[in-house]
This record gives sequence, structure tokens and C-alpha cells, in this order.
Amino acid sequence: MTQPSLNGNMLIAQSGGPTVVINQSLIGAVLEAKKHASIKKIFGSLHGIAGILNEDFIDLKKESMKTLEDVAFTPSSALGTVRKKPTPKDCATIFKVLKKYNVRYFFYIGGNDTAETTHIINEEARAGGHDLQCFHIPKTIDNDLLENDHTPGFGSAAKFVACAFMGDNLDNRALPGVKINIVMGRDAGFLTAAAALARVYPDDGPHLIYLPEAAFNERSFIADVKRVYKKYGRCVIAVSEGISDKKGIAIAAKFSKEVDSHGNLQLSGSGGLGDYLAGLIKTKTTITRVRADTFGYLQRSFPGVYSERDAKEARTVAQRAVIESVKGKHSSGSIAIRRKAGKAYKVSYERVALRKVSKATRHVPASYINKAGNDVTKAFINYVTPIVGPLPKIGRFKGVPVKKIK
Amino acid sequence: MTQPSLNGNMLIAQSGGPTVVINQSLIGAVLEAKKHASIKKIFGSLHGIAGILNEDFIDLKKESMKTLEDVAFTPSSALGTVRKKPTPKDCATIFKVLKKYNVRYFFYIGGNDTAETTHIINEEARAGGHDLQCFHIPKTIDNDLLENDHTPGFGSAAKFVACAFMGDNLDNRALPGVKINIVMGRDAGFLTAAAALARVYPDDGPHLIYLPEAAFNERSFIADVKRVYKKYGRCVIAVSEGISDKKGIAIAAKFSKEVDSHGNLQLSGSGGLGDYLAGLIKTKTTITRVRADTFGYLQRSFPGVYSERDAKEARTVAQRAVIESVKGKHSSGSIAIRRKAGKAYKVSYERVALRKVSKATRHVPASYINKAGNDVTKAFINYVTPIVGPLPKIGRFKGVPVKKIK
Repeated sequence: MTQPSLNGNMLIAQSGGPTVVINQSLIGAVLEAKKHASIKKIFGSLHGIAGILNEDFIDLKKESMKTLEDVAFTPSSALGTVRKKPTPKDCATIFKVLKKYNVRYFFYIGGNDTAETTHIINEEARAGGHDLQCFHIPKTIDNDLLENDHTPGFGSAAKFVACAFMGDNLDNRALPGVKINIVMGRDAGFLTAAAALARVYPDDGPHLIYLPEAAFNERSFIADVKRVYKKYGRCVIAVSEGISDKKGIAIAAKFSKEVDSHGNLQLSGSGGLGDYLAGLIKTKTTITRVRADTFGYLQRSFPGVYSERDAKEARTVAQRAVIESVKGKHSSGSIAIRRKAGKAYKVSYERVALRKVSKATRHVPASYINKAGNDVTKAFINYVTPIVGPLPKIGRFKGVPVKKIK
Repeated sequence: MTQPSLNGNMLIAQSGGPTVVINQSLIGAVLEAKKHASIKKIFGSLHGIAGILNEDFIDLKKESMKTLEDVAFTPSSALGTVRKKPTPKDCATIFKVLKKYNVRYFFYIGGNDTAETTHIINEEARAGGHDLQCFHIPKTIDNDLLENDHTPGFGSAAKFVACAFMGDNLDNRALPGVKINIVMGRDAGFLTAAAALARVYPDDGPHLIYLPEAAFNERSFIADVKRVYKKYGRCVIAVSEGISDKKGIAIAAKFSKEVDSHGNLQLSGSGGLGDYLAGLIKTKTTITRVRADTFGYLQRSFPGVYSERDAKEARTVAQRAVIESVKGKHSSGSIAIRRKAGKAYKVSYERVALRKVSKATRHVPASYINKAGNDVTKAFINYVTPIVGPLPKIGRFKGVPVKKIK
């Protein structure tokens, strides 16, 4: 039986790394909230929980429809974001602030760390006897949230990565050599795996794909590269920034010691891993033209390149969170995207407990990785294709050879 | 007075680094050539002059209209490319091969090194008494060809760079810190300068732009970063891979010793320069969040992100080369894009002597660089805007602060 909606204000915030569609979620929640009389003011907290601690809010009801829609299609977190794990003292402060501003609806957009923070705030509110609807809205280009078939932000980042590999494969075909591209994804290899979508013709790269979920062995890597290079005279390689050896030690740990407040190793934004692997190939083979690029932040913030389905789902998932929140008291949760069985792509949105998506992360399942641990399977391609949607058309000459004149 | 067209076959090739629109030039030349009865067969040489030396040609008249148009919109060199400076022995061989295949029309798409090669082949043909129309079709993302207002390939690469900075500026605004992005352009800073187009709002980055044309001084750099960071609490920086000190020594020379066959230092594909500058900021300031990305090959091969004007001009310039070539005997040259004076953007295409575009390169003029050497001027913005064309719309909240409750 549903209970009457709480009357009070709403606070929404964004956390963790930006994505190209995270503002779709923000705007989706705001537009839905405006439909419900029980939701009074709509506050946007600047830079996640940092904005709550500093009482740094903006009034989202004062934004025009045009601005809201423009922001929805703008990459990165329009409210600003934060990488901050709240201390117990922070949580007590947050709770006090929410109470002071009569916040009854709290929405926090982010990954599993964000779900954890939402969970802590929810527990704090319960303990303090303050009726508060606490919802986590999923977002991560890493696609590593439990309970979800996939997460908003992933499809668009995967499209960027697939396009990048399409172009880079053509570049490598035009000017042969070995090319290594380092892709984001600390623990989960979904984004790196999406590079496989770049393949249009049978000889297209990426010819090798290395994920954090398959132990990386330098000797096998060199053997793989030699084999591909012998076959095609070139080799394009997708490498996750998070690849680790069989002991689980990140290869990139050799180059980076910086950690964020969640204890995560800082891996992006350095050419270290790519240069290291390129050096390895130059040392262990006779191949001379070896290059490495690290895609970096472009993967999560490039304007104009996004999956339409991802943008739509990012908006819907937030609308659902608001709809769930106004259903009654003592409600909290995260909205998960579930894929329905059957040939046609169809999803449903379900409320799941916050603790189910916080803390632990999801990994690329074994069925998506080939036996040799250097590629993805057809099952992965089937999984990821509808999430990413159509890709640019790649033309190629039939290439009828001209008969040589003796 | 025009002379009758030569009767014979045509050979076309691509050279140097790929661009997103270099195939527009290739297809533009092929489609134009098909209109002229004096041009018999149309050979595509695989991998530039390497394909001529190996007599490795494909028959471009056997490609369907659909394939030709698909290839035109596909990034990178569809015929393959090469970074090879021909030796005098190579030139003699090339001349013999062209003669053997009754090639009377030779088109070579590329940068100034390519114009030089075209010039050498032309001289060889004259010396050997073989009537040959030798045309260079300009292409370079570096925009560094003399005689040209701008070059095909630049506008699209500039659009990619501008979009990348738009997204990265939003990323940096959401999660403040210092962000350095290394942009391609060995000697000319045009592509790095195009990052300035990313600015939509007054506080938008890139806040600092460093080009090879302005001597890079580490002390001024640190002072610049400190000043911007103090003002905005963040700083986005565009750095050309080719920045050099006042003695003209490339900063990146500290990390790379690899040179290509034209004697050019290999600068791309390494995080060295970005990491070095990031390290400098971390050492010389109290700023802790400092990141660096190197855009790498994505700048020249990303499918779907291109300037429509650039694509059109890349096609037109090649059509003009063919039209010039069928005008008469003993003709050679490069087709330059000239901008007409006046408010509205308008260009003309003119035949210029090969030696005028070969060897030397064009640099960003002093009038496009600010006095401090850390930004571009309004004159540059006026110059580059019509070449790049419309950019994605960036929305931003008005951001009415919520009154703090005491």
C-alpha cells in the first residue's frame, strides 16, 4: 500500500567522473520533479556533497526550459562534481544541512562510491528520525555497477572509443605499424572491450584487446603482437589502463602512485603504460614503427559524440528515481537498468536496495572474454551493440589490382 | 594559349599523415578525371611513391559510385600512405615506371614534403622528355603550407581539437584542477591555436595557449598557471607538441630522439611532454590536482567529426588540379586556397609553382599571437572560425544561488 508523498524540498547532486550524458539524468530528474506538487523547491548542490557541507546550492526552478534542455545535451557535470568520501563527521553535518533546508528528497548521481555515500546519508537520516527519500541515480562510463545490465554514460563513452578505434585502425592501415591505445576503466574492462565494435572488415583492428579481467602476461603479449603483425603487417591494440598481472598487480602501478580519496589508484592522463608496452615491443621484436596513445579524458567528455539510446536511458533512469521517491515514506534505493530477455532490445527500470550497488563492482563476465584472454567474444558484441547504436559508415575500395607490366 | 590535352593514364597517390578529409581530395580528383576523355585509365598507387616503386596500383575506374562516395567520407588515406623521401635512384625508377604505364597525369596529395617529391618527379620527367602533368594537391592538419590561406584537413582537425577542449573545459570546471592537453603540430601552432574556439563563456578554457612560434619559458609558464589558477580555481592549457625554448630547441626533444626519413623529430604518441609540464607545476606550485593528456592520432582520423567546409574544399581543390592538368602540356603545380578580401568568407583556387609550396613551411603569424606569447588574438579567431564552422552547443545554468539559512 502506498503512503502519502512527503512534502518538502529536493536536493540533487552529481559525483565522480563526468560523462557525456550525466546532465540528461540531472535534467530528467528536475523535469519530473516539477510535475509533483509534493516537491517544493529544487536545489542543485555544487560539487556533490562538498556543496552540501558548504550549503552551496543553486535554485534549479529558476532555470528556463531552454537552458535545462541545452544543459541536458552538454557533456560533464553541470553542477560540478567531487571525488570525496564523507567522514562520519561529514555525514552528521550533511544530515543537519538537509534537515535545515527541509530537504525531503535527495538524489545523488554517480557510480558505486556515490551509491555508498547515498546509503550512508540514508542511514543517518533514519537514525535521526528525519523522513528523507534517498535515491542513487546510476552513472559510470566504466559500466561496473552491480544489478545493472549496463549503466548510463557507458554507451556514449563506448561509442567514442569505438569511433576512435575505427579512425585509428584506418590510420594504421594507411601507415602500417603497431599502435597501442590505452582506454579508461580501472577495474572493469567494458569500455576497452567496446573497441571491438570498430571492426567492419575482416582485417580491421583492434586485433588484440586486453582487459583487467584477464591476467596480463608480457610474454604472451609479445607473442600475440608478433603473430598479428606477421599476418597483417600491422597491429592495433586496445589496452585497459587497469590491466594487471596474475597476482592482480596493475601494470600501471609501475608508473603511478597517486590515489584519490576512495583509495583508487590514479591511472589516467599519463602515457606511462602505453610507452612501457611500446618499449617492450621495440625491445622484444624487430618491429620499428610502434606508437602508443592514451585516450584520456576525451572518452568521457567529448561533445556531440553520444549514443542516443544512452542519452534517453540516462534521462529515464532519473525520471524513475523521482517517480519512486514520491510514492511514499521511508523509501530509498537505486534505479537499475535491466534488459528483458528476447531478441529485440528492451529494458525495464527497477528500484534496488542501495547496499546492493554500493561498494562492490561488476566485472566483464568470463563469457565475454576469449580463451586466450586477448579478445572479446561474440556474446559481448551482441550485448554491447544495441547500447552503443549506429556507428559512422566506413568505406573501402574493392581494390582491383592493375596487372604489372613486365 | 592552351595546348591540346595529353592522352594517357592517370596516377594518384596519398602521402604523409592521414586526415579526415584526404579521401575527399582523392575522390574529387577521380570523379573529375572521369569526365575527361583524354584521361584513360585511373590508377591508385598504394602507399604513395612506395606503390610506384613496387608497381602496386589499383584500378580506380572499377570502383562503384557508391564506394567512391563512401570512401570520400571515410577518414585516413584510402590508398595507404608513406613517409618516404625518394632518393635520386628512386626518382629515376619512378620516372621509368610512369613512362612504362603511360602515365601522363600524376597527382600527389600531401604536405610540403609531398610537394617537394612531386617537384622532383616533375623535373625528372622534363629531363627525360616524358610529357607529364604533375600536380600536388594540398593536405595537412598542420596548416603549414606556403601560398595557402589554409589547407584541406586543417579545418576538420581544428574542429576535433576545439570540441575536445570544449568537453575538457567542462570536465575541468566540474572537477577543478590544472589540465594540460598536448596538441599536434611540429613546427606550426595553428592546430593548437584552434583550441581557442572552445571558449563559449568568459571563464572557459583553454586559459593558456602555447605555440611553437612563441619561445617557451618555464618560469613564465609557471607564473601564468599560478595567475589563472588564482583567478578561476582551475586552469586548462593547450600546448603544441612542438613548443621550443628561445634557442629553438624543442622541449619534447628531452623525451624523443626518433626521426622520420624527412629528418622530422617524432613527437606524437608519447605522454612525455605533458607529464613533464605537469610535474613542473606540481613541483613549482602548491596545486595538487594536475593532469595531462596527449590527444595523439585521434586528431587526424576521428570519423564523423569534420568541418563541412573543409570536406567540400578538400574535394574542390583536387577537382581544380585535374581541370588544370587537362588544360595543356608541360603543366605542373600545386593548387592553393586563397581567401578573398571582404567580410563574407569566400575562397578562390589558384595554380602555384610546386617549388613555392615545397620545402619551407608557414608559421602562425605574429598578429595571431598575443604579446605575452600565451594566447591567440581576435585576428586569429576571425581567421579560423569560418574554416572550422559550427561547433556543438554548450548549455550552462544561470545558477541562482539559494540563500543560506543561518
